[in-house]
Amino acid sequence: MEVLGLSSSLLEGAVHELSRLPGVGKKTALRLALFLLKLEEHEVESFGNSIIKMRKEIQYCQNCHNISDTETCRICANPERNSGLVCVVEDIRDVMAIEATHQYKGLYHVLGGKISPMDGIGPNDLTIDSLISKAESGTIGEVILALSTTIEGDTTNFYLYKKLKNYPIQISTLARGVGIGDELEYTDEVTLGQSILHRKLFDDSLNT
Amino acid sequence: MEVLGLSSSLLEGAVHELSRLPGVGKKTALRLALFLLKLEEHEVESFGNSIIKMRKEIQYCQNCHNISDTETCRICANPERNSGLVCVVEDIRDVMAIEATHQYKGLYHVLGGKISPMDGIGPNDLTIDSLISKAESGTIGEVILALSTTIEGDTTNFYLYKKLKNYPIQISTLARGVGIGDELEYTDEVTLGQSILHRKLFDDSLNT
Repeated sequence: MEVLGLSSSLLEGAVHELSRLPGVGKKTALRLALFLLKLEEHEVESFGNSIIKMRKEIQYCQNCHNISDTETCRICANPERNSGLVCVVEDIRDVMAIEATHQYKGLYHVLGGKISPMDGIGPNDLTIDSLISKAESGTIGEVILALSTTIEGDTTNFYLYKKLKNYPIQISTLARGVGIGDELEYTDEVTLGQSILHRKLFDDSLNT
Repeated sequence: MEVLGLSSSLLEGAVHELSRLPGVGKKTALRLALFLLKLEEHEVESFGNSIIKMRKEIQYCQNCHNISDTETCRICANPERNSGLVCVVEDIRDVMAIEATHQYKGLYHVLGGKISPMDGIGPNDLTIDSLISKAESGTIGEVILALSTTIEGDTTNFYLYKKLKNYPIQISTLARGVGIGDELEYTDEVTLGQSILHRKLFDDSLNT
């Protein structure tokens, strides 16, 4: 902290903690700390306590491992969802993104990350065992691997595929191709190449 | 928060609080909350408590109103500083910026903001009265107005000038001109115009 040379160790402490946040450097942390200093005391208490309370009391759904306030999350508890269809995603943000499409009526399985030896995250740090148990129980008909197309995502996909292929489960991944509204000119070669290889028959109905 | 449709009210609460920070929207707040969830519980406690403690216990120097852990800040308490020279700045970041130059040996007066009717900040919300008291006490020989060159900064400068001009105090502002290392081509017209109007005699010594 002596880089900034702050005149208060209390301020230094808060700036140090705020600069742990991803994408927040020392200067931004100082800006945030000065902002918080101008708030009322009870507002800052509610700020700090809501974060501490979240970390202490948050629960994870025992079925899909998504963040939840209850033992079983709203999605898993919904009898109208297809429990034989499981979409494997990295975290709650992916669940939210897929839910926002209103196109998916199955359940999720939140891995909690991707296999990434560089960050020290191995298969045992993720909820893979729980996914395999589900597969063993024979209640799943199809697993959709919906991890991002990074090296870590592909590694994790492949690891899961190897683990799951011996069960009588259909394993699918998201369709890859040119995004709707995207211009071909600005689409990267790999995506464009894949979208030509995996071209599909022209269909004039709006649903496909 | 229903825009994001989070599955946990604890997470929603934390995201809501985090999104109050300047420059942090709902999506960034969610990213920060998920980051905090992955930290150890004691780390998150120290994060939240350091912020609450800062807001509760922070003090302001009784002389210059800068943030300080003691009644009188390090700068005001330093007998080697020239107490007859007072530089008026907006907040602690400006103090740090000027201190980093190692060119200034006077004291500071931290206003705590700028007069900004749009944000509901009037002269009474700033430490202007305390500056006038200092002027009245007759211990100040020169006041440097070092506020930023925005409309609010200029308004505040002018307000302070009117308040101070009746005291036997020299009132100065920072020199404005083309920055050292800046290219003329990319300097805005107002700055360049001012730097021509206020040109100074060429001096081959390094100190000027």
